[in-house]
Amino acid sequence: MRVLGVDPGLTRCGVGVVEGLAGRPLTMLGVGVVRTPADAELGHRLVAIERGIEEWLDAHRPEFVAVERVFSQHNVRTVMGTAQASAVAMLCASRRGIPVALHTPSEVKAAVTGSGRADKAQVGAMVTRLLRLDAPPKPADAADALALAICHIWRAPALNRLQQAHAQHSVRKVTR
Amino acid sequence: MRVLGVDPGLTRCGVGVVEGLAGRPLTMLGVGVVRTPADAELGHRLVAIERGIEEWLDAHRPEFVAVERVFSQHNVRTVMGTAQASAVAMLCASRRGIPVALHTPSEVKAAVTGSGRADKAQVGAMVTRLLRLDAPPKPADAADALALAICHIWRAPALNRLQQAHAQHSVRKVTR
Repeated sequence: MRVLGVDPGLTRCGVGVVEGLAGRPLTMLGVGVVRTPADAELGHRLVAIERGIEEWLDAHRPEFVAVERVFSQHNVRTVMGTAQASAVAMLCASRRGIPVALHTPSEVKAAVTGSGRADKAQVGAMVTRLLRLDAPPKPADAADALALAICHIWRAPALNRLQQAHAQHSVRKVTR
Repeated sequence: MRVLGVDPGLTRCGVGVVEGLAGRPLTMLGVGVVRTPADAELGHRLVAIERGIEEWLDAHRPEFVAVERVFSQHNVRTVMGTAQASAVAMLCASRRGIPVALHTPSEVKAAVTGSGRADKAQVGAMVTRLLRLDAPPKPADAADALALAICHIWRAPALNRLQQAHAQHSVRKVTR
């Protein structure tokens, strides 16, 4: 299972590709950041993010794209930009027919550290250990993108079972 | 001056094309709504909006795209969807090199009704009058998209003067 994790943002959009299966060792295939200049026009920044994401999709051909689910509880201005960058990432994946999964920050933290309230350093440390890296990926957005991909690989079996249960339930209702 | 106005939304994205110049009669070239099913996956909805916007750009070849500037003061869930739909509209325009302008809801209302606090009915009535239509365009999102386009046509001369003043000021600073 090959997953591209995307930690969306206009200034720094973290991207990381992880391959593996739940219960097996994981492999990092790539990590980086798509950056856009803060003083550029919004439309041009979105075009630059699209180009960056497309390059990562071309280079790694992931089977899934995991994007951080955006909430509006933080700084309003930042959240708008995050929502817009995440829209571009989802658009690029869906246009190619790649399934998109959204995971909340606390789901990601809980998946990789055991605690939904872990800090950046703890997430970075666990990503480094789980992927057997020499040092935590920098900046934090890159580490977060890898954590998203790991989270998806580990949560996917449970999510699939849930979807199958829902599907069977629906079939039962229809055929009853 | 031909402007495509976009009132962004995931369920209903209003689109309207107006041609004209400040101080001259305006002409509506088209109006409509790009809809996506509320039960579809977010990524697929964004792809459908992209396809819809592309069709409008192909059909009308606007010189400017005016998009409503999204704020976060309202319902959080709606605002996220609005931000994501607006990102797709801006992306489509910027990818073609079409300049994108953002106008706030109160700027749009003030432009077409004289009051930044006008209600939907008042905006619809003025759009109908200014474009010499037989009835207000339905739904409100379609009328709002036309109002955005009209707002841009009327504000553009002032915005351009501002930009030129800024540019001259910068040149003066550099050559001083």
